[in-house]
Amino acid sequence: MQPYELSLASAAQSIRARQLSSVELVDSVLGRIEETEPHLQAYVTVIAERARLAAHKAERAAAAGHFTGPLHGIPMGLKDLIDTEGVATTASSQVRADHRADTDSTVAAQLAEAGAVLVGKTHTHEFAYGLTTPQTRNAWGQDRVAGGSSGGSAVAVAAGAATFALGTDTGGSIRVPSALNGVVGLKPTYGLVSRHGVTSLSWSLDHVGPITRTVEDASLVLAALTGHDPRDPASLHVPPADYRLDKDQDLTGLRIGVPGNYYFDHVDPEIEAAVRQAIARLKDLGALLIDVEIPMTRYIQAIQWGLMVPEATAYHERTMRSVPELYADDVRILLEAGELMPAGDYLRAQRARTLMQQAWRDMAGAVDIIAAPTVPSTAAKAGQETVTWSDGTVESVSDSYVRLSAPANITGVPSLTLPVGHDRAGLPIGMQLIGHPLGEATLLRAGHAYERSEAPRPVAPAR
Amino acid sequence: MQPYELSLASAAQSIRARQLSSVELVDSVLGRIEETEPHLQAYVTVIAERARLAAHKAERAAAAGHFTGPLHGIPMGLKDLIDTEGVATTASSQVRADHRADTDSTVAAQLAEAGAVLVGKTHTHEFAYGLTTPQTRNAWGQDRVAGGSSGGSAVAVAAGAATFALGTDTGGSIRVPSALNGVVGLKPTYGLVSRHGVTSLSWSLDHVGPITRTVEDASLVLAALTGHDPRDPASLHVPPADYRLDKDQDLTGLRIGVPGNYYFDHVDPEIEAAVRQAIARLKDLGALLIDVEIPMTRYIQAIQWGLMVPEATAYHERTMRSVPELYADDVRILLEAGELMPAGDYLRAQRARTLMQQAWRDMAGAVDIIAAPTVPSTAAKAGQETVTWSDGTVESVSDSYVRLSAPANITGVPSLTLPVGHDRAGLPIGMQLIGHPLGEATLLRAGHAYERSEAPRPVAPAR
Repeated sequence: MQPYELSLASAAQSIRARQLSSVELVDSVLGRIEETEPHLQAYVTVIAERARLAAHKAERAAAAGHFTGPLHGIPMGLKDLIDTEGVATTASSQVRADHRADTDSTVAAQLAEAGAVLVGKTHTHEFAYGLTTPQTRNAWGQDRVAGGSSGGSAVAVAAGAATFALGTDTGGSIRVPSALNGVVGLKPTYGLVSRHGVTSLSWSLDHVGPITRTVEDASLVLAALTGHDPRDPASLHVPPADYRLDKDQDLTGLRIGVPGNYYFDHVDPEIEAAVRQAIARLKDLGALLIDVEIPMTRYIQAIQWGLMVPEATAYHERTMRSVPELYADDVRILLEAGELMPAGDYLRAQRARTLMQQAWRDMAGAVDIIAAPTVPSTAAKAGQETVTWSDGTVESVSDSYVRLSAPANITGVPSLTLPVGHDRAGLPIGMQLIGHPLGEATLLRAGHAYERSEAPRPVAPAR
Repeated sequence: MQPYELSLASAAQSIRARQLSSVELVDSVLGRIEETEPHLQAYVTVIAERARLAAHKAERAAAAGHFTGPLHGIPMGLKDLIDTEGVATTASSQVRADHRADTDSTVAAQLAEAGAVLVGKTHTHEFAYGLTTPQTRNAWGQDRVAGGSSGGSAVAVAAGAATFALGTDTGGSIRVPSALNGVVGLKPTYGLVSRHGVTSLSWSLDHVGPITRTVEDASLVLAALTGHDPRDPASLHVPPADYRLDKDQDLTGLRIGVPGNYYFDHVDPEIEAAVRQAIARLKDLGALLIDVEIPMTRYIQAIQWGLMVPEATAYHERTMRSVPELYADDVRILLEAGELMPAGDYLRAQRARTLMQQAWRDMAGAVDIIAAPTVPSTAAKAGQETVTWSDGTVESVSDSYVRLSAPANITGVPSLTLPVGHDRAGLPIGMQLIGHPLGEATLLRAGHAYERSEAPRPVAPAR
């Protein structure tokens, strides 16, 4: 087994036990990047020299018995929306080609403080405004989309080209590419992780969170990311939570809601079967399954778009005036559409969100977690524009990818996706576990129990 | 002295000491209503019979030694936006002529629980969307506007036609008519007083608060109105505060900010002189005067209107479709204008508000209170549309009335207006004291100290 194949938890433990050096690990990951990047294009920027220097520094510190933090010497990729001091943050856009932040974003600073070593900035769908990340290829099949918008992060982690990464999620942008590349993605509770220094898509829906190869790894990264940040107006004041996981697999008493509507409608049969099997596994582990009815489903798409479109347009107002030609066509068209939206539509979306939050609180009171598919189909072919369902309904690939993710953005509740198998074409299938506000520890515990009941997953072939 | 002339504090004390009966007090106020209503038209509905029954019940309870609460047997008027079980709530509009709520609004229930007796519902500018309340006349001159939108409440209290009243304030609607009628009005901190069951004008700017003849009375009413209400999404979770006032007039150490810009610009010289004299009085009482510079003043009007107009339009969407002809022309035109506003303008207003709140926090850090005029001119003649300033600038009466009030709505900070004299025409002048969020106790203390340094004020002539 190569060091790049190690989970974060294993690598961190080996580094602390001095069985592995940061230099070996970072070199191994950089080697894997060299090997896979020609096929995958997960990275906008790789900072090999700087990463090696940091790894040597980490190694010297370890030799002296000093460990910076729980992520000491662990190589990471950050989505290229996340400001990093001295390294460009391009948002994968010509508009930001020259943007170089003077200081780290809050999350970059938190991870540096925890000891992590930045190896590069990963591709996003331009400005996070899309679900495919066309620059990047899926780690399980180069003819397939990476998913997005955190496509680079998910592909890099899946392929072993980063031990972990961060993504952002406004309508599914952490969970969709994580599911499509067979890795773990966590969209935390709205306001739990700071967005200061992170390029905004839609501030009332934006979240930052970890992408990892295991649920345990997600818990380790999340622990480094919490804490109130006055520079993000939505940042919550909450006491630190304990996300540590034990080896206990028993889920006795955990109430898992299984949706009778929405989440299994227009879902590929192979995905439905895999997710239902995974839910049955959770039941075998002791969980109680409870039928739930998802409320207000006919408003989900209108609320998601009604909030996102005008907020994105407001954010890009100046550059759309000065350099519209530097945007990709698909993004520019969406931003232009936002200029035409009346205030009333935005207000209706804001008000409907409040009602939906209340309806979800009422609905979710009887359960601890809701289990559902993350995306309704596995990775689409690159260039494929629509999905046709068995009843003849045609849906755009993007709409289908947002559909099952958006409720957790609108309501702000946490959602964790984890791999639960592959379809006949060998493409990964994801299950999402959706929790109560600040219920991350419960999601992680359930996901970890499921994961420990499975054989360890190898890194993606990346061929 | 007639019972209707008593302050709430005096009346409550006399009732508790069994020197005054609720029946006498309510009868006296109802008599005063009969006497003044032909001139003033402060009330939409007077419920004399029901009020007399309630007064008798209160009197029997008092005779048995039982007092419902601190407002036991005190007659009040409620602005006709505030739902009251079994009594119409018309919003002074044909659109709501038939609206009769099944249950009390939260504030009506709180006041009933404190023992107050409803005598009637007071006129508002239709749906609170205006600054004049054209149905009602000023208590100090019938050729003058009442101010608005809580014109009926302020006029009734000024004339002795209610011992106290409630108003609502979205851009000055408690403070403007209070100042123009020589009474005390308090717009509390955003979220401190519940708006459940109160017709909305603009939910992100709306406040409910007391209108009284003394600052002490305002403190007694406010004490009955606080407490978290889950039915108002903006309701704060804060521990109960102590608003009780003592006889201590000493303000030593209180830091009062005196604006060097904005609040004294385009202000009638008589008002400026009266307010500066009142500020000097506060200094004599021990306060420290500190110059402050009000930030972001050129954005105040745009933010106020940018938030209010689309929120009001959203609230009236259905009835503007079904019965547009039932609205008064001025209100219908404003609601129609809101339909044309782009989402981007509303978003800019929301974002600018956040910046203004931060700028005010920074500015106000060095002071406890800001003292300023409440309105830049005394009550305009009925039908007067504009004010012309000494530099030739022409301003609409409504714009001038909102101008000095709006900052406290946008920032959500509390503001108390109290009378500080009359102009040469005999019309009242108001000073507002603006505080920190949840700083009501400090405002009330300063206002009370000022008030105790003055001769008691009689009720308005109402002729």
